[in-house]
Amino acid sequence: MLYYYSLAFGILALLFSIAAAIITLKKDAGTKQMQELSDAVRSGSSAYLNRQAMTIGAFVVVLSILFYFLQNGSQIIIAFVTGAVTSYLTAYLGMNVAVRANVRTAKAAEKGVGAAFYTAIMGGAVTGFAAIGFGLIGISLLLSYLTISNVAILIGFGFGASLVSLFARVGGGIYTKSADVGADLVGKTELNMPEDDPRNPAVIADNVGDNVGDCAGMAADVYESYVVTLVAALLIAAGIAAAHVQLFTYPLYIAAAGVVGSLASMLFMKTKKRNATGALYKGIGSAIIVSAIIDYAITYLLGFSVDYFVAVLSGLVLAILLFAITDYYTGSGRRQVIKISEAARGGAGTDVIMGLSVGLRTTFFPVIFIVVAILVSYFAAGVYGIGIAAVGMLSLTATILTIDSFGPITDNAGGIAEMAHLPSRVRNVTDALDALGNTTKATTKGFAIGGAALSATALFVAFAQAVHISVLDALNPVVTAGIFIGALLPFIFSSFLMEAVGKTATIMVEEVRRQVRTIKGILTGKAKPDYAKAVDIVTVNALKALVVPEVLAIATPIIVGLVLGKAALGGLLVGMIPTSFVMALFMANGGAAMDNAKKYIETGKFGGKGSDAHKASVVGDTVGDPLKDTAGPALNSMIKVVSTISILLAPVFITYALL
Amino acid sequence: MLYYYSLAFGILALLFSIAAAIITLKKDAGTKQMQELSDAVRSGSSAYLNRQAMTIGAFVVVLSILFYFLQNGSQIIIAFVTGAVTSYLTAYLGMNVAVRANVRTAKAAEKGVGAAFYTAIMGGAVTGFAAIGFGLIGISLLLSYLTISNVAILIGFGFGASLVSLFARVGGGIYTKSADVGADLVGKTELNMPEDDPRNPAVIADNVGDNVGDCAGMAADVYESYVVTLVAALLIAAGIAAAHVQLFTYPLYIAAAGVVGSLASMLFMKTKKRNATGALYKGIGSAIIVSAIIDYAITYLLGFSVDYFVAVLSGLVLAILLFAITDYYTGSGRRQVIKISEAARGGAGTDVIMGLSVGLRTTFFPVIFIVVAILVSYFAAGVYGIGIAAVGMLSLTATILTIDSFGPITDNAGGIAEMAHLPSRVRNVTDALDALGNTTKATTKGFAIGGAALSATALFVAFAQAVHISVLDALNPVVTAGIFIGALLPFIFSSFLMEAVGKTATIMVEEVRRQVRTIKGILTGKAKPDYAKAVDIVTVNALKALVVPEVLAIATPIIVGLVLGKAALGGLLVGMIPTSFVMALFMANGGAAMDNAKKYIETGKFGGKGSDAHKASVVGDTVGDPLKDTAGPALNSMIKVVSTISILLAPVFITYALL
Repeated sequence: MLYYYSLAFGILALLFSIAAAIITLKKDAGTKQMQELSDAVRSGSSAYLNRQAMTIGAFVVVLSILFYFLQNGSQIIIAFVTGAVTSYLTAYLGMNVAVRANVRTAKAAEKGVGAAFYTAIMGGAVTGFAAIGFGLIGISLLLSYLTISNVAILIGFGFGASLVSLFARVGGGIYTKSADVGADLVGKTELNMPEDDPRNPAVIADNVGDNVGDCAGMAADVYESYVVTLVAALLIAAGIAAAHVQLFTYPLYIAAAGVVGSLASMLFMKTKKRNATGALYKGIGSAIIVSAIIDYAITYLLGFSVDYFVAVLSGLVLAILLFAITDYYTGSGRRQVIKISEAARGGAGTDVIMGLSVGLRTTFFPVIFIVVAILVSYFAAGVYGIGIAAVGMLSLTATILTIDSFGPITDNAGGIAEMAHLPSRVRNVTDALDALGNTTKATTKGFAIGGAALSATALFVAFAQAVHISVLDALNPVVTAGIFIGALLPFIFSSFLMEAVGKTATIMVEEVRRQVRTIKGILTGKAKPDYAKAVDIVTVNALKALVVPEVLAIATPIIVGLVLGKAALGGLLVGMIPTSFVMALFMANGGAAMDNAKKYIETGKFGGKGSDAHKASVVGDTVGDPLKDTAGPALNSMIKVVSTISILLAPVFITYALL
Repeated sequence: MLYYYSLAFGILALLFSIAAAIITLKKDAGTKQMQELSDAVRSGSSAYLNRQAMTIGAFVVVLSILFYFLQNGSQIIIAFVTGAVTSYLTAYLGMNVAVRANVRTAKAAEKGVGAAFYTAIMGGAVTGFAAIGFGLIGISLLLSYLTISNVAILIGFGFGASLVSLFARVGGGIYTKSADVGADLVGKTELNMPEDDPRNPAVIADNVGDNVGDCAGMAADVYESYVVTLVAALLIAAGIAAAHVQLFTYPLYIAAAGVVGSLASMLFMKTKKRNATGALYKGIGSAIIVSAIIDYAITYLLGFSVDYFVAVLSGLVLAILLFAITDYYTGSGRRQVIKISEAARGGAGTDVIMGLSVGLRTTFFPVIFIVVAILVSYFAAGVYGIGIAAVGMLSLTATILTIDSFGPITDNAGGIAEMAHLPSRVRNVTDALDALGNTTKATTKGFAIGGAALSATALFVAFAQAVHISVLDALNPVVTAGIFIGALLPFIFSSFLMEAVGKTATIMVEEVRRQVRTIKGILTGKAKPDYAKAVDIVTVNALKALVVPEVLAIATPIIVGLVLGKAALGGLLVGMIPTSFVMALFMANGGAAMDNAKKYIETGKFGGKGSDAHKASVVGDTVGDPLKDTAGPALNSMIKVVSTISILLAPVFITYALL
């Protein structure tokens, strides 16, 4: 049967995405110099994504050959490739609009905050709505060809999305932070240049990084969470003894309601005030309220159990709580952030110590929130409740992704305004939006991390069904072994990413120092730095560093499943999901807080810009960079890749495990 | 029945400890100036431990009142108080000898490496053998009054030891690193003073910290692991359906064999070479080989199953593997350490990024090792096998603790030699031993962390028996909730410790700066700094910072057990143990590697002392300090406190849980 309604709403979302793209591209792209700068960022970004696609392609081919030997192999391959392609398309499309929206936002800033804000939000909406459009269309079409007995093929689609997301997050994350750290360490610390100074040879690479990391990476990540969550809910539905078609339709209705809720939110995200936080809260708030109302109406009118609605509502509430708590912990001028700024008086050492402490602290409420959401949804509607709670939360994807993409667009707009020496009136506008964008990047990360954890919890339930486990006894030492390995995984995985940034940034620092030393007139602005060389260094090193973490995430569950068996693999998921969740929060929030602690000092506190405390806080910011933008977010993708491959290969583990 | 043999070997260990103390104290205590310096450190250390005892006393009283309402309440209180008192006694005694051994080691260094090494090792042996002496005597006596039906009372003894250990680790850890960071940040970074420069107002506080943290804290920690492991094995034995007295006697035999093995190791820990690493490896190696031979003889001659021996052996092998792998990862001049030194060229930011990466990386092999040990011992002898594997590993306690206490003794000896301006010939000897002591502090930490994790795994089995759970289903969302909270616990706990160090160190930095500014002639050595003021600041702040983490560790399992019930509490342990293990490794090893990366640069690499890379690496060392000496090791104590209180209050959770 064809799932018309979800297909229809998927198409609706895609149409809106196209409309938003047209609206954005029609805006004035500014002066020739601005366009040149934008073009440099754009070509660097595209070059990177194209080369990254080659690496991913190789993985896709190898894995496809492997999957061929599974039952329903060719169908799984089709689903897998579709998942991978749509995921990359989302990332690619979103980024390509973002790199055009940035210069238009800078230009619009001449007219004031309202116009610039609107341009950036519209640019972001292209990604947001493309993600849910592709997701809903893909799943609706695939599901139409499947029956309850072979619905498991859907996991191939989820795995495809996960794989690409992992690449995009890891590669993009390494890229963006190597460039950023490299640019800052010499530019800010040694040469006292401001952010985005065109004399800094790493400045274009830094701006490219914002796009391939924050924009393409985040888009693929959240797209994946969206798809995988829907798949998990559908798999759980299929695994329930009394499975009937209603259990399949409900999650799709909720997703469709989310399309409407997200569209509604676009009406509220407008502002003329320089402090535009309120507009974003209004956007999320309206998306949640409208979605909840429609969700309730669907539940009530179509005769579903109200318990289902309770589960969905717990997911929706979780979304806003995670958004708000991240803001509370890491927002500029918050108590925890000021603690770090204070510690900066003692030097870089105490700044980082306090930053790590704050990062660790920020894990508390998110864990309590997710625990409550899991328990509420479970007691309302059993394990199916957990599945649809996740769907409820992720039904907000378009809005969250719109707000998130707003970040790199305004960040780049600020960069272009600075590099093109636009008048200070304009730069004040772009700076204000840039600061807001920094906050939204942090807060939407809270959503992405929570969404990944909740969706992985749902996948864990689906995994147990797939390997025919009805009880997973944590007292069994084989399971204990799996749990230990699962808790280990996020640490080892993060280690490789941190190392990649540390190494590449060091190379970058030496290149920047070299250019400053050898290219005469670079500091006076008379000679142009060799931007391309810097871009090239990061590109090559990011791609090189991609492979090991990828293989680690894919191979670990396969090895554990084959050697220690399905119970140990279940243990691995049990150990991995909570530990990764807490680690991701620690890293993302800790990094964001250290960033904002620096910004707080820059407002003139504790000696202000140029003081010793400020220098110390710049070191803290540098350490926080790969924590918040490389390792932290990449864990989201990692846990979903591990979970989906475990489900996908469940039949293999059942048959061939050693233990 | 009286457990004569284990009692006898306990007394033997204690006698050796007394003999070692006499030998140490008879050594020449050096010049009047050296004794004055040693006295200052000693009085500061004693003052701190006395004040800390008051805080602990309050907790003991409150908890005793609570325990009175349990079944067998008064017996539990007796066991609890005995456990707490013997633990504090071990810490107190060990530290009091160490603060006298330090000056004697410095004096002995005049005669050469051999004499100094011997003095420091003998001083360390006092703590090492006192720990196993008190432990074996206490458990043997208590057990003699108990029967299989009420053997659970023993957990009171274990909890007493755990509670004190948590205080000693947390308080000592905060003390030592606040003083150290405070001393370094101004002394080394701002004023270019060497380590242990008497002009630095924080120098005495720094040396006190070595004693109350590394010496007393570590002694209480490992004493606790020793006691708790024996208790866990005995509880598991009691919980086995066909429990017979043989299952009780076996772990005590293994512990007794460990006394002999450790005594044997004392014969091998002698050297005249400046690089004395070999002597320490010989010590551990001989302890393991002798113990293993006696273990096998006992197993064979007394007719136990050889499978038991296999389990014990897996524990012994785990000990040497953890020791060696920590050396491999964090030892001076190792590949991972050099990676950090290299990154220091990029600045403090990249140094710390790489340091964190290395710390994360070092978790891999220890996890694999412990997983293999758990599986081997389980498949050899069931859950009882896990219990006796832990006993096997911890039977090496005396040797490990001797080697560990060697660290602060030589560290202080170096400090005294520096402050008393001893001739460079002498200082070369103390410096060499100091460097070795730094390595052993790191490697024995690997043992302590692994021992804590293995013993906690055994306690987890005992917990399940205590709450009458035969299956703990990780698919039950209530258990999942517990797992999430368990994974959260080490993060929140560490956050408070890092914060305490960050804050206190900042206060200390300002005090040192103030003294340098206001006390004239301090930098030329004409005026004496106000050491006491610095000592006082750290003492007050460390004691203040103690309470919250303590309450957190005690209250969390109680709240989860009462609100969510015993299954969720089981989940909490499942989530906490592996995550804490990996976190502790990350922190302890990451910190040690950053420390040694700095030392590597100081050997003249990458610009050597005073270069920019060196300054960057000092920041890395500062960040690593609280990771490796405060937060990391404290997690050992935390997981055991949480585990033992969960078992102790099991009857309450069975009867009164809400869910």
